[in-house]
Amino acid sequence: MFQNFDVTSSPEQAAPRVTALRVAMADAGLDAFIVPRADAHQGEYVAPCDDRLAWLTGFTGSAGFCVVARNAAAMFTDGRYTVQVRAQCDPDIFDYVDWPATSLGTWIAKRDAEIIGFDPWLHTEQDIIALRTALEASGKTVVATSNVIDKIWTDRPARPNAPVISLPIELTGRSSEDKFAMMIETLKAAGADTVVFTLPDSLSWLLNIRGADVAHNPVVQAFAMLNVDGKMHLFDEVSKYDSLGPDPRITIAPRSEFQTYLKTLEGTVLIDPASAPYALRSLIEDAGATIVTGEDPCIMPKACKTEAEIAGSRAAHLRDGAAMVEFLAWLDAQDPRSQSEISAATALEGFRAATNQLKDISFETISGSGPNGAIVHYRVNTATDRPLSESEILLIDSGGQYVDGTTDITRTVSLGHPRAEERASFTAVLQGMIAISTARFPRGVAGAHLDALARAPLWRMGRDYDHGTGHGVGAYLSVHEGPQRISRASLLALQEGMILSNEPGYYKAGAYGIRIENLIVVREAGEISGSDARDMLEFETLTFVPIDRDMINADELAPWERDWLDGYHAQVWDAISPRVSDVAREWLQQATAAL
Amino acid sequence: MFQNFDVTSSPEQAAPRVTALRVAMADAGLDAFIVPRADAHQGEYVAPCDDRLAWLTGFTGSAGFCVVARNAAAMFTDGRYTVQVRAQCDPDIFDYVDWPATSLGTWIAKRDAEIIGFDPWLHTEQDIIALRTALEASGKTVVATSNVIDKIWTDRPARPNAPVISLPIELTGRSSEDKFAMMIETLKAAGADTVVFTLPDSLSWLLNIRGADVAHNPVVQAFAMLNVDGKMHLFDEVSKYDSLGPDPRITIAPRSEFQTYLKTLEGTVLIDPASAPYALRSLIEDAGATIVTGEDPCIMPKACKTEAEIAGSRAAHLRDGAAMVEFLAWLDAQDPRSQSEISAATALEGFRAATNQLKDISFETISGSGPNGAIVHYRVNTATDRPLSESEILLIDSGGQYVDGTTDITRTVSLGHPRAEERASFTAVLQGMIAISTARFPRGVAGAHLDALARAPLWRMGRDYDHGTGHGVGAYLSVHEGPQRISRASLLALQEGMILSNEPGYYKAGAYGIRIENLIVVREAGEISGSDARDMLEFETLTFVPIDRDMINADELAPWERDWLDGYHAQVWDAISPRVSDVAREWLQQATAAL
Repeated sequence: MFQNFDVTSSPEQAAPRVTALRVAMADAGLDAFIVPRADAHQGEYVAPCDDRLAWLTGFTGSAGFCVVARNAAAMFTDGRYTVQVRAQCDPDIFDYVDWPATSLGTWIAKRDAEIIGFDPWLHTEQDIIALRTALEASGKTVVATSNVIDKIWTDRPARPNAPVISLPIELTGRSSEDKFAMMIETLKAAGADTVVFTLPDSLSWLLNIRGADVAHNPVVQAFAMLNVDGKMHLFDEVSKYDSLGPDPRITIAPRSEFQTYLKTLEGTVLIDPASAPYALRSLIEDAGATIVTGEDPCIMPKACKTEAEIAGSRAAHLRDGAAMVEFLAWLDAQDPRSQSEISAATALEGFRAATNQLKDISFETISGSGPNGAIVHYRVNTATDRPLSESEILLIDSGGQYVDGTTDITRTVSLGHPRAEERASFTAVLQGMIAISTARFPRGVAGAHLDALARAPLWRMGRDYDHGTGHGVGAYLSVHEGPQRISRASLLALQEGMILSNEPGYYKAGAYGIRIENLIVVREAGEISGSDARDMLEFETLTFVPIDRDMINADELAPWERDWLDGYHAQVWDAISPRVSDVAREWLQQATAAL
Repeated sequence: MFQNFDVTSSPEQAAPRVTALRVAMADAGLDAFIVPRADAHQGEYVAPCDDRLAWLTGFTGSAGFCVVARNAAAMFTDGRYTVQVRAQCDPDIFDYVDWPATSLGTWIAKRDAEIIGFDPWLHTEQDIIALRTALEASGKTVVATSNVIDKIWTDRPARPNAPVISLPIELTGRSSEDKFAMMIETLKAAGADTVVFTLPDSLSWLLNIRGADVAHNPVVQAFAMLNVDGKMHLFDEVSKYDSLGPDPRITIAPRSEFQTYLKTLEGTVLIDPASAPYALRSLIEDAGATIVTGEDPCIMPKACKTEAEIAGSRAAHLRDGAAMVEFLAWLDAQDPRSQSEISAATALEGFRAATNQLKDISFETISGSGPNGAIVHYRVNTATDRPLSESEILLIDSGGQYVDGTTDITRTVSLGHPRAEERASFTAVLQGMIAISTARFPRGVAGAHLDALARAPLWRMGRDYDHGTGHGVGAYLSVHEGPQRISRASLLALQEGMILSNEPGYYKAGAYGIRIENLIVVREAGEISGSDARDMLEFETLTFVPIDRDMINADELAPWERDWLDGYHAQVWDAISPRVSDVAREWLQQATAAL
């Protein structure tokens, strides 16, 4: 079982640890210390040894930070974690700060703290520039220092050292040698001699390797430098790479030597200020090298999947779709009151595991019934678990990591008697989801231009959802991958091979939540017979799982929306029916019947 | 009759004039001279005395420029004018250059011309910076000079001196005194002592005046400076203002004294580099004053109409809608073959004139039948006029200037037997137009975010249109007004009171053109009963004229699209039926019946 539902929060741990931290801060001459969630790789997940924020505060959310001053401390979290932070962090120790509405600068300005320390490996240059700008007026000093947490965290876990595996060309579609050649071209164009890689999914993509350093995302956490001569120096637990065999291009050294090696750099060095640790600049400049800044050159080619990666994703989605259908058929056969949010999530992981190809779930399943469905980032645990009920709907958002692809799917299902309002909301969400699924658009169109297509049906009802419409997804990599997005903020033109989620939703606080999510991939648009069709792009749907017909007001749909849904369900039947049990097939036939 | 349909092009005039220009260029020590369409006010229309481009080349389009070198000359025009420039400009004299694909820099680099002159009053600072950058490599020199055309244009018309009228507070909703106060606040915020106004619609808005200096747009062409002390110096034909009576705030001097006065400026002067003539900077800096650059401070408040201006626009649209309905009823009663594009445009202007309140048409009516409808900026003349036919459709795009508002409406009508393909295209265009009409959206949403709603139905057919979805419209002012737009390029958040056009289209070259256009105004969204509706904005439709039901495939429409159309037609009947003749009312009843 990859997911566990224990209550991990332990507010009582904070008191002694914060006290110890204040002693250590005083020894280090600091009035305050910033504890971010991030590690040096700025990923969504951190290894246990890097989870300083949870260790200190009890807060287990994936975004937020803590500041401890001499006589005050605060937890900064955004709207997603308003509830969770109160459940997990002791109010006698921490102010709850609504961030970014209230900035660190605003909070600390009023506190007795002149010298504020931070670990330069855990913050990007952009972060620290913003922080110093915010504190300029207050006259306070922000200083890079060694990590004070690490001095008091005596039983800190060891760094992960799970073995690294190598992906075959059949799955990646592009050899690591070819990727090196691409990078060298980029370096030459940027006039750089060396590029420093600190993003795990960039390095994993570049070397066609995967690992198990963090939960749910098979990235390898390492630092590396690639020189324009084609040689790479990689810094990590050396033993992780034993199974790979020798690679003349790459020298692997212990992670501890990265800092030392940085000091030997010469010439011009490319770093990405959006992700590179703040510590890099001074180390590189002290070495006498010149820094050029630019986007990590792996990011764009990684985002545009190869035909092999897209074929792999199709295969993974058929496998995952069959598991989802087994789950939905099983759920439909249960007395709702005999099940709960946890038992549903457990059963679903079981069906995925039964494929014998599940490497991990791609994130902790969101299983929210009734009012819990309205909590966008809900993670059920034994304290919040609710029994299911035929009078409530269930939102279940989950995914699998398979060696050939990463999946991410949300379905919202009736458990018996959905209310008219729930059906009306579901229908509007479905219309938005269909608008993206059927979108055909000229090259140059960005996520910012398409986002409204998914919202317009809800907007007409005066409703909306407070998250993006779609995020990028990796190829057996991070389930949240940049830079591609469907969001009003994303002006990056969508390009062939980009995999995105398509997940509009509607959340009525205290009542219910609805989200429908498929993964889609950007393709050159197909021919339209007898039309003066222009050269355009379109989305191919990767996910094949029925959408609950009991939740749809069919008479609200436009003819073309109904055609899409019936056609989609026919595709689901053709693709999935040969892959499921007889019981599930019988259920699937009903579930995929035309409206 | 405000529109005439004569063939104004006279290619033969160019030869002697270009020859004379080259002599004058030589006397001035110039190898080449740039002749833009623009005057010093950078508007869409120019007065006859400023129409140097047409005088020299015969080209009467509203965008483009000419460059005359010693041994070569070129007309630079964009895709809209590919056909027109060939009809109007002598190929023995002018190269036809597809601009901006080919830049002036590219063309002139290969020509025997080292010193290139331009009139610093006819180009903005931004234009010249771009030009100099483009020519940097070539080593050519771009020099500001007095206008060489004006030396050889002996029978040049006099400057317009039509009297200026003053608009009452009932129409503007905001006194010029209040607007001065707003400007003074802006000046203080910008740390400027003086602002220079050169945009006619800004000055006309600020002073609540209108004029007749150019065709179709009632702007007053003048220069003015407003000081933070509340005093304005205005430079124009003084006699134009006789009817206004004295205004202690304003000193009016002859236009010829503007340049002299600029040389007396002190302190800090605000100019808008996007519109201010290049000449201003050196004159102001020579005077010892300091320049700060920023957007013309009239632009945003002018774009957000007052309640009085919106009420006026509603009244103007009812009046204009009644005239349109009389026209459409009349057209429907004619044998198509007895009419032509010109007779249709003439009849329509007649119905508008019959309101006895038409000040001008707001632009030259686009009346295009069959293939002419596919020419987006088509202007019919006696040479291109086509008889109407029951087997073709007619696109007619027109508008009126009334003292209480500016209208702009396009209808595409069947003249008997529309083809299935024309109906399918019309239905998709209508669906896009309905998507914008019904859009409800959160504050912060920009035209860039809504544009795709209008295109998605066409995109699904592999089709598109090569113009924006909507432009801003003034209040008895320019029919094309910035900055508000519905376009992928416009990231400016839409704000209450902005009036825009909503005009998707589809154009099949050589076959037919379709466009449906209403004007809409941004309003706070109304209540939705029983909904957890968010605070949003929506569009109120200002235009009330039937949309041709014979062109619609009703079974393609979504239920909510059909509801909008039937509801719109019911509103049209209620609003217009009391205002038209019995004959027109009878026609209107059929035209507004539910689908």
